Amino acid sequence: MKSGLKVAVIGGGSSYTPELIEGCIERYEEFPIQDLYLVDIKEGQGKLEIVGNLARRMIEKAGVPINLELTLNREEAITNADFVITQLRVGMLDARSRDERIPLRYQCIGQETTGAGGFAKALRTIPVILDICKDIEKFSPDAFLINFTNPAGMVTEAVNKYANVKTIGLCNLPINTRKQFAAFFDVDASEVEIEMAGINHLNWTTKIMVRNKDVTQSFLDEIPGKQGFTMKNIPDIEWDRDFLLSLGSFPCGYHRYYYKKDEILQQQIQQLKDEGTRADEVKKVEVALFERYKDPNLSIKPPELAQRGGAYYSEAAVNIMSSIYNNKKDIQTVNVQNNGILACLPSTASIEVNCVIDQQGARPIQLSTEIDARIRGLLQVVKAYEELAIEAAVHGDYSSALMALTTHPLVKSASVAEKILRDILDENKDYLPLFFSESKTI
Amino acid sequence: MKSGLKVAVIGGGSSYTPELIEGCIERYEEFPIQDLYLVDIKEGQGKLEIVGNLARRMIEKAGVPINLELTLNREEAITNADFVITQLRVGMLDARSRDERIPLRYQCIGQETTGAGGFAKALRTIPVILDICKDIEKFSPDAFLINFTNPAGMVTEAVNKYANVKTIGLCNLPINTRKQFAAFFDVDASEVEIEMAGINHLNWTTKIMVRNKDVTQSFLDEIPGKQGFTMKNIPDIEWDRDFLLSLGSFPCGYHRYYYKKDEILQQQIQQLKDEGTRADEVKKVEVALFERYKDPNLSIKPPELAQRGGAYYSEAAVNIMSSIYNNKKDIQTVNVQNNGILACLPSTASIEVNCVIDQQGARPIQLSTEIDARIRGLLQVVKAYEELAIEAAVHGDYSSALMALTTHPLVKSASVAEKILRDILDENKDYLPLFFSESKTI
Amino acid sequence: MKSGLKVAVIGGGSSYTPELIEGCIERYEEFPIQDLYLVDIKEGQGKLEIVGNLARRMIEKAGVPINLELTLNREEAITNADFVITQLRVGMLDARSRDERIPLRYQCIGQETTGAGGFAKALRTIPVILDICKDIEKFSPDAFLINFTNPAGMVTEAVNKYANVKTIGLCNLPINTRKQFAAFFDVDASEVEIEMAGINHLNWTTKIMVRNKDVTQSFLDEIPGKQGFTMKNIPDIEWDRDFLLSLGSFPCGYHRYYYKKDEILQQQIQQLKDEGTRADEVKKVEVALFERYKDPNLSIKPPELAQRGGAYYSEAAVNIMSSIYNNKKDIQTVNVQNNGILACLPSTASIEVNCVIDQQGARPIQLSTEIDARIRGLLQVVKAYEELAIEAAVHGDYSSALMALTTHPLVKSASVAEKILRDILDENKDYLPLFFSESKTI
Amino acid sequence: MKSGLKVAVIGGGSSYTPELIEGCIERYEEFPIQDLYLVDIKEGQGKLEIVGNLARRMIEKAGVPINLELTLNREEAITNADFVITQLRVGMLDARSRDERIPLRYQCIGQETTGAGGFAKALRTIPVILDICKDIEKFSPDAFLINFTNPAGMVTEAVNKYANVKTIGLCNLPINTRKQFAAFFDVDASEVEIEMAGINHLNWTTKIMVRNKDVTQSFLDEIPGKQGFTMKNIPDIEWDRDFLLSLGSFPCGYHRYYYKKDEILQQQIQQLKDEGTRADEVKKVEVALFERYKDPNLSIKPPELAQRGGAYYSEAAVNIMSSIYNNKKDIQTVNVQNNGILACLPSTASIEVNCVIDQQGARPIQLSTEIDARIRGLLQVVKAYEELAIEAAVHGDYSSALMALTTHPLVKSASVAEKILRDILDENKDYLPLFFSESKTI
Ligand SMILES: [Mn+2]
Ligand SMILES: [Mn+2]
Ligand SMILES: [Mn+2]
Ligand SMILES: [Mn+2]
Repeated sequence: MKSGLKVAVIGGGSSYTPELIEGCIERYEEFPIQDLYLVDIKEGQGKLEIVGNLARRMIEKAGVPINLELTLNREEAITNADFVITQLRVGMLDARSRDERIPLRYQCIGQETTGAGGFAKALRTIPVILDICKDIEKFSPDAFLINFTNPAGMVTEAVNKYANVKTIGLCNLPINTRKQFAAFFDVDASEVEIEMAGINHLNWTTKIMVRNKDVTQSFLDEIPGKQGFTMKNIPDIEWDRDFLLSLGSFPCGYHRYYYKKDEILQQQIQQLKDEGTRADEVKKVEVALFERYKDPNLSIKPPELAQRGGAYYSEAAVNIMSSIYNNKKDIQTVNVQNNGILACLPSTASIEVNCVIDQQGARPIQLSTEIDARIRGLLQVVKAYEELAIEAAVHGDYSSALMALTTHPLVKSASVAEKILRDILDENKDYLPLFFSESKTI
Repeated sequence: MKSGLKVAVIGGGSSYTPELIEGCIERYEEFPIQDLYLVDIKEGQGKLEIVGNLARRMIEKAGVPINLELTLNREEAITNADFVITQLRVGMLDARSRDERIPLRYQCIGQETTGAGGFAKALRTIPVILDICKDIEKFSPDAFLINFTNPAGMVTEAVNKYANVKTIGLCNLPINTRKQFAAFFDVDASEVEIEMAGINHLNWTTKIMVRNKDVTQSFLDEIPGKQGFTMKNIPDIEWDRDFLLSLGSFPCGYHRYYYKKDEILQQQIQQLKDEGTRADEVKKVEVALFERYKDPNLSIKPPELAQRGGAYYSEAAVNIMSSIYNNKKDIQTVNVQNNGILACLPSTASIEVNCVIDQQGARPIQLSTEIDARIRGLLQVVKAYEELAIEAAVHGDYSSALMALTTHPLVKSASVAEKILRDILDENKDYLPLFFSESKTI
Repeated sequence: MKSGLKVAVIGGGSSYTPELIEGCIERYEEFPIQDLYLVDIKEGQGKLEIVGNLARRMIEKAGVPINLELTLNREEAITNADFVITQLRVGMLDARSRDERIPLRYQCIGQETTGAGGFAKALRTIPVILDICKDIEKFSPDAFLINFTNPAGMVTEAVNKYANVKTIGLCNLPINTRKQFAAFFDVDASEVEIEMAGINHLNWTTKIMVRNKDVTQSFLDEIPGKQGFTMKNIPDIEWDRDFLLSLGSFPCGYHRYYYKKDEILQQQIQQLKDEGTRADEVKKVEVALFERYKDPNLSIKPPELAQRGGAYYSEAAVNIMSSIYNNKKDIQTVNVQNNGILACLPSTASIEVNCVIDQQGARPIQLSTEIDARIRGLLQVVKAYEELAIEAAVHGDYSSALMALTTHPLVKSASVAEKILRDILDENKDYLPLFFSESKTI
Repeated sequence: MKSGLKVAVIGGGSSYTPELIEGCIERYEEFPIQDLYLVDIKEGQGKLEIVGNLARRMIEKAGVPINLELTLNREEAITNADFVITQLRVGMLDARSRDERIPLRYQCIGQETTGAGGFAKALRTIPVILDICKDIEKFSPDAFLINFTNPAGMVTEAVNKYANVKTIGLCNLPINTRKQFAAFFDVDASEVEIEMAGINHLNWTTKIMVRNKDVTQSFLDEIPGKQGFTMKNIPDIEWDRDFLLSLGSFPCGYHRYYYKKDEILQQQIQQLKDEGTRADEVKKVEVALFERYKDPNLSIKPPELAQRGGAYYSEAAVNIMSSIYNNKKDIQTVNVQNNGILACLPSTASIEVNCVIDQQGARPIQLSTEIDARIRGLLQVVKAYEELAIEAAVHGDYSSALMALTTHPLVKSASVAEKILRDILDENKDYLPLFFSESKTI
């Protein structure tokens, strides 16, 4: 690795960027970025400039010698980068809003990263990421692609299958989970170790160690009725005690969409009627945020950003890059290729598990707990969906798309899958060129 | 194998028995049964006598030298048998009626062999079959257990895991499917070959050969809109052409419960309101049938039996026994242990695939078609359910039971699973001793 | 399949051809060849004519309407063929003689199809077969390639990996083994069923059924001391009783090279001194045979051919083609792709096991016996050798070649492997163009 | 883990013990042993006292508060221990001497831990270790068994299969290899990272990183002709450059027995003639060592011990215990259960690979390099041998024993295997009670 660290952020105009900048400033000593490129597309130029100027003020105030560049030239940003971070959103919040609405028309859960909504996002996003990979292969073949773009697990799998780029998929759920356990047990996060098993946004905590003691069973016994174990964007429905003890491991926030499908669906239908979708809510937050960012006197990350979600995003990002840069060999939970770790999934699947992080990247550690049929069934059917959705996205293939949706547990039936797919294709025409080229028919 | 063939039929008082008797008579030459034992439990003695007397009249009329015995002594029936056929129904039609009603209370499909209904049936049935296996191990260790009792795939898996008995699980769906193709193509059944892959009642026809020509794709293209491809007990909802071509293989009748979950659920809710469940309907048919059976002038299988369902049941049963007895090495689609044939399922799972049948039993043939994610996802999640349900049934284990239902695609959520499970346990107390012994708590 | 059956025999000038012709004549009724093409290369034209004229006389005498064509034009022979049979020998018997001599220089067993000798044969043969496959892909894409050319298992695997041709690898060992059992038990061959597991020329009989009775253990107990269980070309060294009972299955003739490595090596060294190699012996037989074939009065297969080896070659060949042609679905032991049947070998490996043969080709049947470590170790190491040897042959790759030989249990060490490889490359220059192209260096 | 650390050393009277004591003293601060039990059997009491007294003097001189106990009471030593170290030698050096001689009678390599010699050692050792495990299960179920006793990989596998004890198998080869690379590249050991893959004493270094740079290929290119890459007890025969580059990874010292079988065998035959076996040599060293140990003025590890072999044994031992005790999560190469890490080996096999070490024990990390057929063949056949040898040792089973030896690449043939086995059984009667109980016959 060269001594002068270069980091390129694709989707640099995101409202999350100040979070990332803050992290880079705070951890400058161990991870001394020399050149930081924020890159965005033409349509995002306005936001890029607002966020970029705030970033510049933050760096100046902190007095760290990071050279910040704002650019629309992706090639320039990627060339010789050590790390390429992708935090883009194809179609922006309007697309997300559609993703959340379409499934609800058919009494199916509408969610940004899972179910039919996440599927639509995958179709839009994967080809764009693979296009970025082509640039990395050409202009910075040794760079690591640190992908935050959702659906992060599917993007990781698509990159591993269809590009020749070293990639790690990142989500802030694992780091949040660990901090939530620390808060629950009233200990420092460093005193908590967890074993996580599964795939992105469908991840079971199979073991919880607090101060070197296995507290998994007692936790499952005590947690029902208490709150605090979800993500900003997921309703905090309580888990039932019998259920948790039967499952034998702790589900992640997103599991509520599966195990509490019914209740969440009712909430979403009501919420849509009352206030619109989560995307609509976020849009308002974003407008306010960008107004706030414009303030020339603002030179820190504004506290309002916390409401946006994405807690610890920056910590997760700098953690992984610093561990690679410093060859730390510490353990983080990220998305990588399976290759036998979860025997019930294909070798080429992406999985989200505990990994050793060092200069070679992320290598998963054998699980100490058995993944039995309690976890296996749901895990396998969602992975099969992901595999089909990736094929659909990469090839613009209608059949794979239909079967992906048909396979997904949050879609009610093949007939509903067909209707949802028609709507998704209709309303995302501009972002799905592979589906609308001449030669595509079934 | 001894020269004097002995066959024991457990659940001999079933209304299906005349079908089986007819088959044994018609195929006497190639499968010369010497001793045929119809055995039933005390509660079924009345039916056993009615059916048994009809059977006797049928045998006499046909003039074949089959010695028929009616008995309540299972040990006597099994001792030295060459084949033990199980066609029992624990809890009889009343239990089935409950199985069909309970899930519907919670807007889930109520079906005899799949979903929460099939689950309840599994809980009641598996311990009884394993008990029969203990008799076979003791009194007739070389006998083949030919199991027709549903859920036939799960019963087969339970026997392979928990008993030391040679068993083959049988369903009349494969033979019906082949005959339906023959009718569709207007050829003789012998001119149709099909490759089936999957598990009992969730079985995809992956290849259709008619007169040595692969017609799979053209069939999938033409079939939508045409009828005739279902079982007596399953609503004949049409498949969509895009869906079939995307799936690339032909689903079985039971697939409608999954791919058409929504539509079927609406039908069931309506039907329950209008006329009750399928069990209620069957009960009426059975009352009439037994009245008919009593007629001392009746000495053939009455045509009314056809309405009961179970078409070709007898053909399937005699086919398998005759191929074993005569070491035929022909190909039939039955339920056996996986052991690598479907790589996406555990080795110990039962699967329903094409097998070579000979004196050694049934050995599956490698598939010529790839089982990709289109099939894999649904197959794996249902198999995980089956694995958990078997554990629940064998050990009377509440946790496995709850997770089995939670895992099943026809159950809406973990919360619903819990409610359904409570009802099932409540309403089947008499048939689930393992769940209600002293030591069982969660 | 068209009504007018066309068969092309590549290497038609082989001394074995009259055997094949006899089989085609005898089975004409069930396998009515219309056009039979014997094709050979320029260097083999003389032999082709001698054999071809004998073939013509045989056909005429038999009065069957087979149209025989002799040609050097491979494309013409292959075009629209239903079956392409390969029975060629690259480098002819002179190359075999070298294959048998080189390893002996270094105190390693010299054998035509296994060990370092078989390796040299693989290097010469595989590229030629793949070249033939290109013609089949172009001129007869639906044809079956019935490959008799050794090493038949490796050739099958190479075709499955590097060509798009339906192929079945054939060896006369399985049919011989069955007939030897029949002779031993003094029953008709039809009364013997055997389960074979392994790979070509390394194949264990794991179960022997005689008149529907499993006689495996008693056979293993009785056979030692008795003879008759080997191939013409393999020394008939007795098996030890303790060894057979410990192994638990019956080894094939070629296993002597492994289990009796020491004894065979001593015999070979002595034999080389006394009389030369087996190739030298065969050469003399062949000269005499071709003299005999020239006799214009000869119009049957001369009995002298039996001495040449290859017993039942023709029966095996016609059996497989007729079962395909007639969609027989009988069981034969042939070489096909593994795909999970032998879990201890790669999916893409070729294996030699019992298969159902019908118009779709050969599909293996699940084994009824477990392949445990007794068989697994040797099987895996030889298959790893085969995999490396195939890579070496296909790519002309020195590294793979060296590691193939190093891996083979019949080669003494890596140092010896290096010496043998140098000799093989030196003495086969004309037949290994891929190894001697400009760009090849290590 | 309790605060007062207790360590029990089974085979405490070994000449290696001062090495271990030195390590415990030097690392006392991070690994503060409170109670150190050296335990031995009656026959070893004399040695135990000599070594124990030296240990006591070393501890006193160092001034660390370790309480040392010498005992013949294994139960007392194990009770409540945190770590149980096994470094025993069943039959002592006399048995080793026989192990080395017997195979040489039949022109097979005679070696302490591999081949037929290692096999004999496995037969003697495994039942003793399993007996120790019974004590651990009873008296200290949470203890880690740190096994140094050879064959360490097979012992680990036997414990994992037949006991319920947390175990890690340890060898000093990995730590030596790393230090040898450091010396070769003239860097500190901390600057070298290696990926090792394989099983104990058959372990390939698949990747070498020096100061974060992958130098594997250049190392393989340069190393031939240079020395220093072997163990004390293995002849330092040079590797050939073509061979190393073809293999693509760096073999361990013990690989010479396989890849250089021929050369080593000649050396051993000569050495036996000239000076006896390695055991004979070691015996002399040991006599001198124990004389030295008796010196009441000696209170440090005497430098002569270095000649004995076992370099860094103590470092390896304290490393693993300290990482567990301190929950370090560093990476060490030890023997653990496979469970999917090496896909080509059974799940239950023991493997020797890089592991994360923490309070939960050792969990392997996914390999970053592919294990292809170059490595796979030899690895699989030796593992199959190990599996059979373990069965033989645990059950006293002659058949498994014969097939184990027949399968081993260092045994010439099945016939030789039989002869060697007879000799091993004859000459180890006293140590193989399971083979000589009444009921054992084949
Ligand atoms: Mn996320
Ligand atoms: Mn059925
Ligand atoms: Mn052959
Ligand atoms: Mn060692």
